[in-house]
Amino acid sequence: MSTSRLESFSDGVLAVAATLLVLNVTVPIVGRHETLAHALGNRWHIYLAYAVSFITIGIIWINHHVVFSRLRIADHAILMLNLLLLLWVALIPFATSLMTEYLRKGHGQHLAAAVYAGMFLLMSISFATLNWFILFRRTGLLRAKLSFDERRRIIMRFVSGIVPYAVAAGLAPVSPYITLAICGAIAAFYALPIAAGLPRGSEG
Amino acid sequence: MSTSRLESFSDGVLAVAATLLVLNVTVPIVGRHETLAHALGNRWHIYLAYAVSFITIGIIWINHHVVFSRLRIADHAILMLNLLLLLWVALIPFATSLMTEYLRKGHGQHLAAAVYAGMFLLMSISFATLNWFILFRRTGLLRAKLSFDERRRIIMRFVSGIVPYAVAAGLAPVSPYITLAICGAIAAFYALPIAAGLPRGSEG
Amino acid sequence: MSTSRLESFSDGVLAVAATLLVLNVTVPIVGRHETLAHALGNRWHIYLAYAVSFITIGIIWINHHVVFSRLRIADHAILMLNLLLLLWVALIPFATSLMTEYLRKGHGQHLAAAVYAGMFLLMSISFATLNWFILFRRTGLLRAKLSFDERRRIIMRFVSGIVPYAVAAGLAPVSPYITLAICGAIAAFYALPIAAGLPRGSEG
Amino acid sequence: MSTSRLESFSDGVLAVAATLLVLNVTVPIVGRHETLAHALGNRWHIYLAYAVSFITIGIIWINHHVVFSRLRIADHAILMLNLLLLLWVALIPFATSLMTEYLRKGHGQHLAAAVYAGMFLLMSISFATLNWFILFRRTGLLRAKLSFDERRRIIMRFVSGIVPYAVAAGLAPVSPYITLAICGAIAAFYALPIAAGLPRGSEG
Repeated sequence: MSTSRLESFSDGVLAVAATLLVLNVTVPIVGRHETLAHALGNRWHIYLAYAVSFITIGIIWINHHVVFSRLRIADHAILMLNLLLLLWVALIPFATSLMTEYLRKGHGQHLAAAVYAGMFLLMSISFATLNWFILFRRTGLLRAKLSFDERRRIIMRFVSGIVPYAVAAGLAPVSPYITLAICGAIAAFYALPIAAGLPRGSEG
Repeated sequence: MSTSRLESFSDGVLAVAATLLVLNVTVPIVGRHETLAHALGNRWHIYLAYAVSFITIGIIWINHHVVFSRLRIADHAILMLNLLLLLWVALIPFATSLMTEYLRKGHGQHLAAAVYAGMFLLMSISFATLNWFILFRRTGLLRAKLSFDERRRIIMRFVSGIVPYAVAAGLAPVSPYITLAICGAIAAFYALPIAAGLPRGSEG
Repeated sequence: MSTSRLESFSDGVLAVAATLLVLNVTVPIVGRHETLAHALGNRWHIYLAYAVSFITIGIIWINHHVVFSRLRIADHAILMLNLLLLLWVALIPFATSLMTEYLRKGHGQHLAAAVYAGMFLLMSISFATLNWFILFRRTGLLRAKLSFDERRRIIMRFVSGIVPYAVAAGLAPVSPYITLAICGAIAAFYALPIAAGLPRGSEG
Repeated sequence: MSTSRLESFSDGVLAVAATLLVLNVTVPIVGRHETLAHALGNRWHIYLAYAVSFITIGIIWINHHVVFSRLRIADHAILMLNLLLLLWVALIPFATSLMTEYLRKGHGQHLAAAVYAGMFLLMSISFATLNWFILFRRTGLLRAKLSFDERRRIIMRFVSGIVPYAVAAGLAPVSPYITLAICGAIAAFYALPIAAGLPRGSEG
């Protein structure tokens, strides 16, 4: 299968998942002794989580493009690994809802934050596996020849992207806010020019 | 009509249907005598059904590409048969909700599971009809000439894909869990390399 | 603007609107003295309306392609007329919900059916206007020269597509079921080979 | 990254955001002493806000195309600025819901209208920044050379698009209806041929 239709379906899932995040940003019902300003201000964690999840899906999309721009065609195994990646991505709106719903309750907030970071962790493991499979098991399908060292450097960057999500999930029992902060820091890191090496590499 | 815009609209419906599945994965409301961990664990059937439906839609998408990559252009009848296929696909999020909602209730679970497998059954009959119509009634619109034997082999593979869904729907009165297990097994079968013959065939 | 990105945005809106129709097909909550089978059977009007609206959006998509395949490029006025068309299309899920919600209530069912057919009426007027504008006011942007007679024949076909929706809306005060039946008959008419002249014309 | 996949993802988010607006157009539940006609008429502000937001997203899409049709390729910084723009666009359905929900309540309506116009304001600032960055910081990535004067004229048009949204947000404490009216007037202005200079410019 040519990669163009694979990208069009993936773009669809990524764009819909990103936009569905807004369904978690609900209109507050204001009680008698509250103002709308207070109710909205009280929900800063919902807006923060929206931004973190939206930017993260955006970065997945950028990296997705970089990974598939290296391929000429995709075979059945690549299609299925890509489908598995999208399965986790499409769950991000659920994980975001779960985390923001429980973050300020007296119970369940640690588990909810662990699920949130855990979903990013599963996504990043799935993404690294897909990329490793393309670079080391389907070398013949690549557009350009890449030396073993280049391929190892690329895969190392993806594998090292797994670690902070594991840390974020691991610290959820300590504080769900730390988990959210780490996930936000990862998104900011990849968004800032510092990490631009990855997508830029694809233009060279 | 060229097949490219047909594929772009179909990709849209398939991607949106797959992503809408997440709306069925709702955040549990935890009562007094329950923990979030227990509530989430209690919902394993929701996560399983999400995965089965998501992978199934993904496999429909892969096969859809294979079928339409054989065509040069599409006429009115092909467009309408494709629309009918998409009509069933867009109902998969509803069928998934229905099944998971009733699976653990004391009543209606058998019918709900029959509707779930039945939707896949209607989809696979619709897909086989579309493919048969393209191969045997619109032979002139194919990109490459295919011998009668090749066309019969392709269509047989699609027709034999109908059988397990009929079995899954037929066993719903026995147990809805068996129905879900069969639908999951079908998804796993097509996902595993064993069944890779189908999409791979399109690359040759 | 080249028509390709116009079509990609329009395809997106059409595909999402078609797929959002499923949100109206809700899971029934079954009371004590009812079975799921009875509850599902009781909702046949929801499934019928889903099918009518889905097929109608599919036919809009087919015709949309035919209309824009005639154009080389689109100017500002065409873009805005297309946006107006999409504005009505995106309201079809709402109109479908409204109609099915009130169809079997003791009140409001006539107005709800009028809104349903009225939305299709506004859409078809908007579509005919867009097509008229392209054929008679932006003749220079067409890919191929069309004689005045050909252009008049095309526009007459679109204008005559408005009439049955006006009849369907006009008969809503008599019976909402007649309105739904007429909308269904229109969808069936365009779906059947009898009406295939329209999209087929674009291939010649 | 070539701009084509950037546009496909952006088109997806824009099309989904526009279509999700319909979820705010809910079916009214009619009480005993009310008719459906009255209930629907009572909700004119919901339909108006739907139209204003839908047309505004449509105009963003048109301008988005104009901006990116000037680019040969996009680098990391452009991708991130585009993602930020889409983040605001995807919030428009929320802002529309918030505004229409509170517009006719006795409290919170001023803040809700300010959030509505404020979201458009943030979007337009984000869009102007993206455009400025492309024209003045990534001049080398442009398809055609543009003189400093041309680039200043283009950016001035975008910057002047920010002002009316700032006015609309600023007048929310006076009356939320004025805010909605101004946002509607901006949409109408860009929709009418008067403002056609912008998208037309891209064809020349």
